[in-house]
This record gives sequence, C-alpha cells and structure tokens, in this order.
Amino acid sequence: MADVYPQPSDSSEAATSESGQAPGGITAPGVTTGAIRGSRKVHHRTESGLPVPARRVELSNGEHLDVYDTSGPYTDENAEIDVHRGLHPLRSGWTDGREHRTQLEWARDGVVTREMEFIAAREGLSAELVRSEVAAGRAVIPANRRHPETEPMTIGKNFLVKVNANIGNSAVSSSIEEEVEKMVWASRWGADTIMDLSTGSRIHETREAILRNSPVPIGTVPIYQAMEKVGGDPANLTWESYRDTVIEQCEQGVDYMTVHAGVLLRYVPLTAQRVTGIVSRGGSIMAAWCLAHHEESFLYTHFSELCEILRSYDVTFSLGDGLRPGSIADANDRAQFAELETLGELTHIAREHGVQVMIEGPGHVPMDKIEENVRREEELCGEAPFYTLGPLATDVAPAYDHITSAIGAANIGRAGTAMLCYVTPKEHLGLPNRDDVKTGVITYKIAAHSSDLAKGHPRAQERDDALSRARFEFRWNDQFNLALDPETAQVYHDETLPAEPAKTAHFCSMCGPKFCSMKITQDVRDYADKHGLNSVEAIEAGMREKAEEFTAAGGKVYLPMAE
Amino acid sequence: MADVYPQPSDSSEAATSESGQAPGGITAPGVTTGAIRGSRKVHHRTESGLPVPARRVELSNGEHLDVYDTSGPYTDENAEIDVHRGLHPLRSGWTDGREHRTQLEWARDGVVTREMEFIAAREGLSAELVRSEVAAGRAVIPANRRHPETEPMTIGKNFLVKVNANIGNSAVSSSIEEEVEKMVWASRWGADTIMDLSTGSRIHETREAILRNSPVPIGTVPIYQAMEKVGGDPANLTWESYRDTVIEQCEQGVDYMTVHAGVLLRYVPLTAQRVTGIVSRGGSIMAAWCLAHHEESFLYTHFSELCEILRSYDVTFSLGDGLRPGSIADANDRAQFAELETLGELTHIAREHGVQVMIEGPGHVPMDKIEENVRREEELCGEAPFYTLGPLATDVAPAYDHITSAIGAANIGRAGTAMLCYVTPKEHLGLPNRDDVKTGVITYKIAAHSSDLAKGHPRAQERDDALSRARFEFRWNDQFNLALDPETAQVYHDETLPAEPAKTAHFCSMCGPKFCSMKITQDVRDYADKHGLNSVEAIEAGMREKAEEFTAAGGKVYLPMAE
Repeated sequence: MADVYPQPSDSSEAATSESGQAPGGITAPGVTTGAIRGSRKVHHRTESGLPVPARRVELSNGEHLDVYDTSGPYTDENAEIDVHRGLHPLRSGWTDGREHRTQLEWARDGVVTREMEFIAAREGLSAELVRSEVAAGRAVIPANRRHPETEPMTIGKNFLVKVNANIGNSAVSSSIEEEVEKMVWASRWGADTIMDLSTGSRIHETREAILRNSPVPIGTVPIYQAMEKVGGDPANLTWESYRDTVIEQCEQGVDYMTVHAGVLLRYVPLTAQRVTGIVSRGGSIMAAWCLAHHEESFLYTHFSELCEILRSYDVTFSLGDGLRPGSIADANDRAQFAELETLGELTHIAREHGVQVMIEGPGHVPMDKIEENVRREEELCGEAPFYTLGPLATDVAPAYDHITSAIGAANIGRAGTAMLCYVTPKEHLGLPNRDDVKTGVITYKIAAHSSDLAKGHPRAQERDDALSRARFEFRWNDQFNLALDPETAQVYHDETLPAEPAKTAHFCSMCGPKFCSMKITQDVRDYADKHGLNSVEAIEAGMREKAEEFTAAGGKVYLPMAE
Repeated sequence: MADVYPQPSDSSEAATSESGQAPGGITAPGVTTGAIRGSRKVHHRTESGLPVPARRVELSNGEHLDVYDTSGPYTDENAEIDVHRGLHPLRSGWTDGREHRTQLEWARDGVVTREMEFIAAREGLSAELVRSEVAAGRAVIPANRRHPETEPMTIGKNFLVKVNANIGNSAVSSSIEEEVEKMVWASRWGADTIMDLSTGSRIHETREAILRNSPVPIGTVPIYQAMEKVGGDPANLTWESYRDTVIEQCEQGVDYMTVHAGVLLRYVPLTAQRVTGIVSRGGSIMAAWCLAHHEESFLYTHFSELCEILRSYDVTFSLGDGLRPGSIADANDRAQFAELETLGELTHIAREHGVQVMIEGPGHVPMDKIEENVRREEELCGEAPFYTLGPLATDVAPAYDHITSAIGAANIGRAGTAMLCYVTPKEHLGLPNRDDVKTGVITYKIAAHSSDLAKGHPRAQERDDALSRARFEFRWNDQFNLALDPETAQVYHDETLPAEPAKTAHFCSMCGPKFCSMKITQDVRDYADKHGLNSVEAIEAGMREKAEEFTAAGGKVYLPMAE
C-alpha cells in the first residue's frame, strides 16, 4: 500500500534500529512490528477510494476471515516504520475546507465526512448510520485535526464496543521509550484508543512521541500536567494555568480529554461517609482545590470557554467521574449520581457549542447495580457514549482485577456502554508491564466481544462461528490463528501435545483418541446430511438402516478419522 | 482440634514423607499443607457441639474476618496429615440409625440432620432454612454415607454459589499422585467439590486415593469407567456392566454421579445441523450406543433401578447435559432443550424414589441467552440445583476460556445457578497443570462471589468491605491477606515497590506520594466526622472555616501522612 505508507527517503533509520532521535527529542528503541501470527494486513477501498485496514486470517480450508484491525502500519509487512519521524499522516488533507467545524457539526448538517466513510467501512455498517449517530450525539469520532496519523474510529453504543488501554509513566517508574512501545503493543492486541496518564517528568515529550506514532486516538487528563506546572499543590491551580495546558495538548493533537468538571464544592462532603472516599486522581485534585478556596470548581465556572477551545480543534470531551465509587460499598451512592446530574448539564452545554462528548463511569459496582448506571447516564446525558472503567464486580481479588472487572465490563457493555477502559492484573497493586498490558487488552477484547454478541452486532458472531468450525473439524492451526491471542493458544496446546502431527490429529489431549466426542458427531452429521434429515420425523425410518450399517462396519466410532 | 483430628499412632508417615503406600495401594508423595498466608484454621461449635471449620484472617487493626473454608485439615497446623491412611472420618457415626434414608427423606420428615446443622453454621444461615430447601429439592447435600471424610456442604440457589474443580488423568497424561495433590490443591484455593474425570488406566485406584483424602464431596461420570471395562467401544456397553460400575463407585464413597440419561435416540439427529454437534463425552457415548443398537438409552429405560441404587447410599444424581451446546452458534437450540425436558421428567422420578438431584447445564452461551437456561431449568426440573459448565460467553479466546466462561458463570450464577464447574486456561487446548487448576479455581471464586453479591447473600459483602477498608487505610498486608490469592497480590505489589516500608506507605506506585487521591479523602472525612456533617445542608457553614484552616495549614494535602 505504497500510496498509504510511502517509503522513507532514508530507510537506514528503520524502527528496528536500537535508538535515535524521536519526535520530542527523546531516544526511542525499535517497536514491535510484523504481522500477527497466521494473518496479514489487507486494505479495503471505500467508494471514494479510501484504504481501510483489516487483518486477514487465512484458513487451511481455503477460506479467510477479515477482522477489525487497530494495530496500524506496525503489522503491515509493506510499511516501513520509523519511530523517529512518526507515522505517515493518513488524514492530512482530509479536513481541508472544514477547519472550523467539528464532526458533530458536519453530521448535523447532513455531511458524511471522510472519517465517517472510513468508519462505516471499518464497522461494516452504512455511512449514513455513522453520520446520524454522530449527529444525535450517540456516537463520537475522537479525531483532533492536529493528529492526522490516526485511523478514524467511532465510539457509540450502536457500533462495536471499544476498548481503551491506559499507559503513562508516574513519579515512581517507567520511561518514554517504554510508553511508546506500550502504545504500539496495546494497539497491536486490540486497543481502540490509548490514554496517556503520565504524571512524572517529561510529560510533554512523552506525549509527543506517543502522538506522532499512534494509529489510534489518544486521550489525556490535562489536570495531571497542570499539577506538575504548579509544583503538585492543587491549591495553586488556576483557570489560566489549566487553560494553557489544555491548549498545549490540543496543539499537540490529543484527541479526547478527561475533564472532571462535575466535582462541585457541595458534592465533596457527600464522600465523607464512604468506605473508600474519592478514588479518582482528578476528582481528588478538584476536591482539594474547592476546599482550599471554598469556591466552585474553575472547570465548572469556565466550562463554556473550555468548550470553545476544544471545538476549535475538534477535540472530544470525556467528562470524568471524579466521584466514582472505589468499592462495592460505595456503588450507586448519592455522591456518584449527584456528579452524574452535573455531567448531564455540561453535556448539553458542550453540544450547544458543537463539541463532541462522552461520559466516564465507574469503577466498582456489583452486577445487580450495573444497569442502573447506564440507564441514568443515557437519561441525564442525552445518550452520550458511556465510557466505563470496568466496573469491578467485587473487591476481593487484587491481582485478578482484570477478571473481576471483565465481568462488570461485559455486563455494562451489554447494557449500552460504548467503550471499556481496561484494567490489568496489576490494578491496585502496581504499574502494568508489557505482559500485563497484553493481558489487560485481550481480557477486555473478550468483554467487548461478549457484549457485541449479546447486543446482536450483525458481524460479531462471524469469528465465533469460524473458530468453532475450525475446532470441530480439528483444524488446530486455524483455531489458533482465529483466537484473540494465537501465540498463547498454540503454546498451551503444545504443552500437552507438542508433536506437529497433533496439529491435524482428530482428537485432543482432553479425551484422547478413544473418547473423542467430535468423532461420533461427525458420524451423525454425515448420515443426516446423506439422507437430508433435519427433523425427528424424517429420522425414524432411516435410523434402523443406519444401525445396521453401523454394526456391520464393526461399530467402531472412536478410531481416528482417516487422513 | 484433637477431638476432630486425633494424632496418628505412627507419625513417621506424615504427609511430608516422599512416598509410601496410600489407599488403593498407590505410591503418593506429600501433599500441600500449612495455613494460607495471613490466616489460621479455627472451628466454630454448633449448638450440639459439632466443630465447623473456618479460615480466620487476622488484621493489623486488631479485627479479624472468618471466611468459608473448603481446604479441610490440610491447612490446620494442629492436624497431622497422612495421605497413606487418609483423612479422619469426621462423619463416622453421624448416620447411625438412618442408614436407610436419604437427606431428602429426613428433610421431608422435618428432621434436621447433623449435616444440615453443620451446613447452617458454615453458611451462617438457619438449620431450618437448610432443611426446608433440601426438602423442597431446591438444595442437595452430596454426602455418600460411605464417604465420612467429607465436611458437609450444600448446593442450592439460596446458599453461597459453589465451585467445582475437575481433575483426573486421561489416556494421554497424568498420574495418581498428581491427581491427589490436584484435589488437595484445588480445595485449598476454594473448590467446594471435585469431579474425578479419569479415563485412563487405574481409574479405581486413583478414585480410592482421592476419596480417602478428600474433605469435599467427590463426583464422577461412571460411564467413563464402564467404557474402559468394555474396551472403549460404546456398542459393547450394557446396562449390567454400567450398573456394576455404579455400585462399585457407590461402595467406594462417590458423593454425586453424572448420568447422561436424557440423551434419547430421537434427539440424536437434532445435533446433525449443529456447528459443533455433540461435545459431551458421555453424551456422545450414549448417542453412539443408541445408533449402534437403534434402541432407547439403557440409562433412560433402567432409570428407576438406578434410583434405587443411589438411594441406598444417598448418592446425589447430577443429570448430565449430553447435548449441551459446544459453541455460541448452538446455544439454546432444539437438541439442548429437548434433552432438558427429559431431565425434568427424570428429576421427578428420582425425587419419588427419595434421591437428591441436580441438573447440569451449558457450555457455550452468549450473555443474552443465559437467563433463559435458568428459567427453563427451574420450570422443567422443579428448581433442582442447576450446575453449569461456565458457560463461555464467546468462542474467540482459547487460552483465556477461564475468563470467557467466568463472564458467563457470574451471570448464570446471578440468575440462580447453584454451582459453577470451573474452566481453566487450558480448556479446548490441553490438560490443566497445578497452576492452571489454581487459576481456574480463583477465577471461579470471583464469578461465584460476584453472583453472591448480586443476589444479596447476607454475608457476601463482609469480605469486600473489609478489603476495601484495608485498601483505603493503606493496610497493605491486610489487603493481601483478605484477597482470594494473597501470595500473588503481594508478589505483584512488590514488583513495583518491594521495600518493606512500602507495606505501610500511605500511597502506592500508581500515583506516587504527591497525587494520592486517598489522602485528600481522609482530609474530607476527618473534617466531616469532626463536625458530624453528613448532609449538603450541614456542610455549607463549616466549609468556609475549613477552607481557612486548610489555607492556614499551607494547603498541602499530598504530603505522606505522618506515621
């Protein structure tokens, strides 16, 4: 796809080089490149000729399945990667002539933008559906005009449920190099957006390196950098210092920003009786500011000015839930829902300014209280896309919170949440490493896909059916390649049956050759197909004949099928 | 608790010995013993003096939490373990005078058995509730009179959701020694029952060693051993050979048995059009037998005789779902529900014979089709306890099927399923090793506990609240010790902050000391508590004063709290 990813003039600085000057003037090593096992990058053309990426899994029976692909050029064997220069600006030129309007405004005017066209092809849905959902505010397209490297995507309940992966260094550990690779690594395994939550040093340089190399939208929480600028003391924060930080990040190309504008002075005491109080960093910072000055939050009082800034870049609001519950005991309490009411008020103000909005949600919620969160959010926030952190369905399993939260995430996704923020095994305990990031992303792809199946997304079940057919027909390599994590699937299989012939064996290690339940099913199926039997009525006559054939054949049904 | 676990006369054969003659004449190594990190075994006494085990987690603030304990004497520092002799027969003598009646029959007559008394104390509920639920058939007590080593437990939707772990060797791998340790290991981490699914050689000896050393009920699928006796050819199975195998296993002490008596001749062709046909081993064996003989299943035609055998030992039926769906595509289809109707018919026959019954369920089911499974089962099977395998909510993640199925399990548990059969990361790929067994059990404890919270079990939230308070108060060791897996929680924490002082640090590696959201919450709480503020109205006056205090104090809220 040379037209999509032109060759660099100097290919000696390929991504595989050990180090060099990357955007932001940092030293970056090579990042993970190459196709995912058993698949290759393909591009579908839209009517107007836009190349839309997909990952094609080639099957041993001659068929193939194209799956939604978030990995960007890094998995394209034809693309040259150069982290020092950054990705080719795919969308450069797309916004010509519409610099001063947002996707929301164009959608309201009935215009299908190139981003909408691209997204429609990517989701396998109509461009008109994308436009109408964006116009209604039920879907957003996080795409800062100053981040042309992104492959457009949408977040909305009538599209595939999306997954966000958090990365970012902190005062305690991690480097810029690690964060760039974490971004590439997370999108390789399926992250639809990335949030850079860096709070340590060199926040600007880290973000620059991530933005210039990211094929997915990037979100941030500007107040973290604003805090660094005022020496870490929330009392010293001012609207002006915050505003300047937001502008700085808009200029860099951040696609959506978390703004905790719903933490009002009068809500702070509502958290006093909680088991875990305020667990949101941004929420606690604003609560501290309100207490220190006994004034209403400057994020709330200056919200309209903030709208004008975000509108001029088409940056999407992610209105943060600073008072989200941090434990099962605090779920759905007065503080949480009081803030949600204010987020609803702000949603309508932002929309009046033509700014796209999504709403952040909990946190920790038992299964029986999950649906109420979605219903209230849709009612109060005009169905703005809901973007939740899990939620964890129980507090009792630190080290397994990717699982406790996947249970909550699958349920809230089914109820209508549009994007799920992943949780890694290190949640509550430490910072995720490379393996934790992969585990978190795969776990959340499972939750999101389970939601898509339950919601009946028209194309969701294709992959389940393809993999199950491969399993039934003992096409082991196809089963691995269709899996969300082909490599781990094969490793686990080979632990018990490493021999290559086992890859085509018509049995597996769980039952062994004599007990294979799939084999008898094949006998039943072959017989029924042969006689066109698909009803109880039709079977009776033929059944006796079958019994005779069967006994005549020695009644051996557990011998491995002839190759 | 010397009265519960008397010292062996010869302590030289302790469980720590490398090997020796174990029950069944097999060589067994030592098994895992010793208390779980941060806790110790305690026994509560019932009114009549029965000692009921619990695991006490001692907290650094002087409090403690007693949690349900499935691990048996192996975690009791005062118990001597000797796998060669087996566990002390806790229930010996309990059944004197009621040899010829089942728990169901006693419950119907209004009698509270010692097992019911023990279970009531263990669940923290009334003995009358246990009796009435058993009498109604909504709960079962799997307790073969010939398996006195078990600590009584119940399976029913109005009690804690239980977890079963499958072990057992196959033609391909594993040894008796490994299986005994897997049983001890699985119950250590929370398995409420164990199924021995051995299909390889020495099935009898493996089962004997497991039974004599198991503190939890043991389930089996007798047809697997019956198949071994007829050389692995289902066509050679006969009612007599099957019956003799069932009697052999009842005599050994098996507590519940999976019987695929619902796979009728006329249902077999209903599987022909499926994506994955018949995926149950027992189901495929019986389907093969029906095809070979063109006769109705002998399990169905001889079901009343089977009831009489199980009744005489008080063995519980687990009516197997031989036609369960093996893929999302086959969920809730005609074959599955046709079999369920027959299981309902058999449930009522078994109850007429005074035999306890539970019903096995799927399998692979998308979230939107889960609840229908429970509703139909309750309607057709008179609310007999439902016992499901997962179900997996999607087929696309082999190597992560403990997670795909935990999503389904938590949902079906919430809907009323009484016991969840675990799935390990090796499902569909290979046989679980020791680590896989632990991962599977912990994952299913998460699903079961999430269900208990959603169902509002009176004591379920105690542990969540205790752990969340420890988290909020930075009592790191308490947080680890209250976790389902204390060891892994600490290992993950120490990867980022290994220093011992960090165990009491009032911040963590995610935010670092300056950004700690918990700290500001403590300020808010201290202030509100001091002024008895718990309403928006009450806060306004005092808020200004607080703002002044706060600013006077320098407004520093992010300094680590003084130790």
